[in-house]
Amino acid sequence: MNEKNTSWIQTVLLSPPNLDDNTADADRLVSALKTCLETDAIDVDMDLLRKLPALLRKWSYQVRGIVFRDRHRWLLTGITAAADNSPATGLAVDLGTTRVVLRLVDLASGCALAESGFDNPQDAVGPDILARIHYSQENGGLEKLNGLIVDGLNRAVTDLCSTAKIDPQDIYALAVAGNTTMTHLFLGLDPRWIIREPYIPAVNKPPLVKAAALGLRVNPLARVLVFPNVGSYFGGDLIAGIFSSEMYKHEETALLVDVGTNAEVVLGNRNWLIACAGAAGPALEGGVTRMGMTAGPGVIDRIAIDPQTRDFDIHAIAEQPPRGICGSGLIDLAAQLYLAGMIDIRGKFRPSDCGGRLKDIDGLAHLVLVSAGQSGSGGELTISQADVDSLIRSKAAMFTILETITLSVGVNLSELKRFYVAGTFGAFIDPRSAVAIGMLPDLPLETYKPLGNSSLAGAALALTMPDSLAEIDRIRDRITYLELNVNQEFMNRFSAAKFLPHTNQALFPSVKAWRT
Amino acid sequence: MNEKNTSWIQTVLLSPPNLDDNTADADRLVSALKTCLETDAIDVDMDLLRKLPALLRKWSYQVRGIVFRDRHRWLLTGITAAADNSPATGLAVDLGTTRVVLRLVDLASGCALAESGFDNPQDAVGPDILARIHYSQENGGLEKLNGLIVDGLNRAVTDLCSTAKIDPQDIYALAVAGNTTMTHLFLGLDPRWIIREPYIPAVNKPPLVKAAALGLRVNPLARVLVFPNVGSYFGGDLIAGIFSSEMYKHEETALLVDVGTNAEVVLGNRNWLIACAGAAGPALEGGVTRMGMTAGPGVIDRIAIDPQTRDFDIHAIAEQPPRGICGSGLIDLAAQLYLAGMIDIRGKFRPSDCGGRLKDIDGLAHLVLVSAGQSGSGGELTISQADVDSLIRSKAAMFTILETITLSVGVNLSELKRFYVAGTFGAFIDPRSAVAIGMLPDLPLETYKPLGNSSLAGAALALTMPDSLAEIDRIRDRITYLELNVNQEFMNRFSAAKFLPHTNQALFPSVKAWRT
Repeated sequence: MNEKNTSWIQTVLLSPPNLDDNTADADRLVSALKTCLETDAIDVDMDLLRKLPALLRKWSYQVRGIVFRDRHRWLLTGITAAADNSPATGLAVDLGTTRVVLRLVDLASGCALAESGFDNPQDAVGPDILARIHYSQENGGLEKLNGLIVDGLNRAVTDLCSTAKIDPQDIYALAVAGNTTMTHLFLGLDPRWIIREPYIPAVNKPPLVKAAALGLRVNPLARVLVFPNVGSYFGGDLIAGIFSSEMYKHEETALLVDVGTNAEVVLGNRNWLIACAGAAGPALEGGVTRMGMTAGPGVIDRIAIDPQTRDFDIHAIAEQPPRGICGSGLIDLAAQLYLAGMIDIRGKFRPSDCGGRLKDIDGLAHLVLVSAGQSGSGGELTISQADVDSLIRSKAAMFTILETITLSVGVNLSELKRFYVAGTFGAFIDPRSAVAIGMLPDLPLETYKPLGNSSLAGAALALTMPDSLAEIDRIRDRITYLELNVNQEFMNRFSAAKFLPHTNQALFPSVKAWRT
Repeated sequence: MNEKNTSWIQTVLLSPPNLDDNTADADRLVSALKTCLETDAIDVDMDLLRKLPALLRKWSYQVRGIVFRDRHRWLLTGITAAADNSPATGLAVDLGTTRVVLRLVDLASGCALAESGFDNPQDAVGPDILARIHYSQENGGLEKLNGLIVDGLNRAVTDLCSTAKIDPQDIYALAVAGNTTMTHLFLGLDPRWIIREPYIPAVNKPPLVKAAALGLRVNPLARVLVFPNVGSYFGGDLIAGIFSSEMYKHEETALLVDVGTNAEVVLGNRNWLIACAGAAGPALEGGVTRMGMTAGPGVIDRIAIDPQTRDFDIHAIAEQPPRGICGSGLIDLAAQLYLAGMIDIRGKFRPSDCGGRLKDIDGLAHLVLVSAGQSGSGGELTISQADVDSLIRSKAAMFTILETITLSVGVNLSELKRFYVAGTFGAFIDPRSAVAIGMLPDLPLETYKPLGNSSLAGAALALTMPDSLAEIDRIRDRITYLELNVNQEFMNRFSAAKFLPHTNQALFPSVKAWRT
């Protein structure tokens, strides 16, 4: 790792010019860097070139060059005195529709120096991609959306640098991973055609851009690597995920799933990669059930139900009184209700087994999770039959997508040796619960690997691997995108998956064992 | 030629995207261009990228791409409708210390569309390189000098485009050839170290720069190719000269000489190139003799003296009454005076043979060329012994430089099969006269080839040859710069050359024949 990392930072001790060696300042430096980097392609910006003669003399030709690798050349993005040991840093950005996360990385060591996040300020214009694309078509809309995210990033960078005691001028490289729409809005590209048939982004592989050209207040020569996309519905955040999982390097076939509004799935190995995306239903995100919310203090993330006593053991984040439930909590709940026999294989509450927890509200069956006295919201926390139905549709959609993509290349789900689960979904769900409801296939539980924020991790990795852009392009080019065809066959599979855990119980032998 | 030229302009008829081929707009275009250009390296600027989706749709994906070749990649600098047949143009610039000359070129055909020139407005600050470099060190001096030349170019471009009925936005490429100092001032690079030992330019090979970044009012994405230099005293104008002469392509060894304040000399062939520069004395430029001036109406450019009658046949430019004499006229005069026996081998007036034309002014011998009644200035036009002495020093310096550079590689001057003479000097001098006074070696007169403005020609060629930048770099890298060592040996050669045509008359057999 270290050997590679050092390539971004090159200490060059030049012989000062003399009458027998009157090579120009820039060419002298470039020539030394070419030797270090074993390349014949290094470009220096005019802005830096203008300062070079004075800087080289000030530092007696003993300098540290900060370089960045473009697709077909290296770029010199800054120089400091050779003796300067203030860190030259890079900024990794996970550019989410809802939330943006930043990580400041020391380019020399690859170490994370600080991390922070903020809610995407474009939310003020519209909560989702569709609303923002529509807004971008209004007069000045694109500029406003672009300004919102750039300003948000600038504020976050200021704070992050202040925390880490880093000068924003010492940020020499950025790597940004986001979905195709967020990437377009960040680059000021019109996203209009992303949502119109045949769904064409302005660009798949964005060029390396100067930070100053994007209005980012870091070193103006810092280069911004923006992750490429495969299409309108398979963005750079997922490429970053594949990159950070390293599944593209391994001989064995692995599967990566990232669940948000869409379920995005990648299947493959070092030889091939196939990807698809489909609506997994919104049940897994906050906002679906009336009390659904994203993880945070007081949010129920784990539930156990004693199959004998049917007592609920409810855990809320930060040990706060419960005030809602998040996706992983919901999955746990459904799994536990099913394993305890409180819902049937269709997900319907079984009144005989729910006992006093079941009540009718406005003609719809509700199960009380937390009484008003114990909740953090002042009211009862309940889950309705409709909520459970919605979850079951989501889990069925997810399983159907997994089946479809594996079948498309003749791989059986049971053959998978690694199953990466990205994002907060991956970080919080209990794979056993997801298997119990038939959302994920019945694989040995150690097969499931949470990836965490793989988009951010991929971006950070791009900053510490000198050949990253080429590697990322290669990953992107190797992906075959499978258009999910919602045909009869798909619908049949979906219908079969709408049971707990599945119509074909033989697919889930473990669940049968857990129930008894 | 045509096959090569077409490469800058690529007509690409793309299949519009559909559900089965959802490649993004930019990538669709780039992919087609890659096929046309047989390259895997094409970059598109963000500014152009932002406009692409709308433009491609407006033109139904039938477009003409204008590309430019950087060192390690191609760049897309503009697109138009495929059916658009307005010329995509380039601008070649000879960036002289005194005069700047522009040529507008059709990038598709390579044809010149218009040409113009203007006096370098930096002259207001200082007439020569030294004065301007000193001025650049004052507060705001560099910015002022840079602004003067950029503004001058912008005014000239506006006029030139208006004459040629071209929109300046249709200028997609520029090639600029100038000496090292002019190049620095044009790029806004500090020229401070050029004149200070060990004479180090800021850069030898300037990067390709966007026109907008230099403040040039042409297409903002137009790229500016600035010719590289070999050092502080061997600039891009000379590299452009070598490039346009094609001497670097031939098997036979040729010599190229460019005379201004300095005599700059290149010797070589397809295998090697050696260059040097030395003060050739100012006698060959305007301003030396009291009546010396650069070529223009009324300036004597040719003189013949009847050896029998010693009648003067004087030709002034544009058939105007004579008011001064230029370098080529002076050389003609000295040659004719010598061949007619009116000056001796030391260049001294022979009173017995000058007759009534010789007169004493302030104790110094003067020869009357034109009487007051026939001159365009109202006074007599005369040339003094001091003027002739000065010319002889200049011609001796020139010949010594030619001898020194050829001797340094063991080539005899008499072996040269081609002798290129660049600039106005080359355009106006009569080689027979230059040989007669021993300024140029006694080669068959057809060996001498005037190159005209080879700096401009080289710049124009760079715009019409797609691989020009690489070719120009190769030329630059192949040049060995010979530092002229003014040692005893050089001084001995110089002393021997201070006679007409030379101490060693055997070197000039033709001159002996011409005198009889």
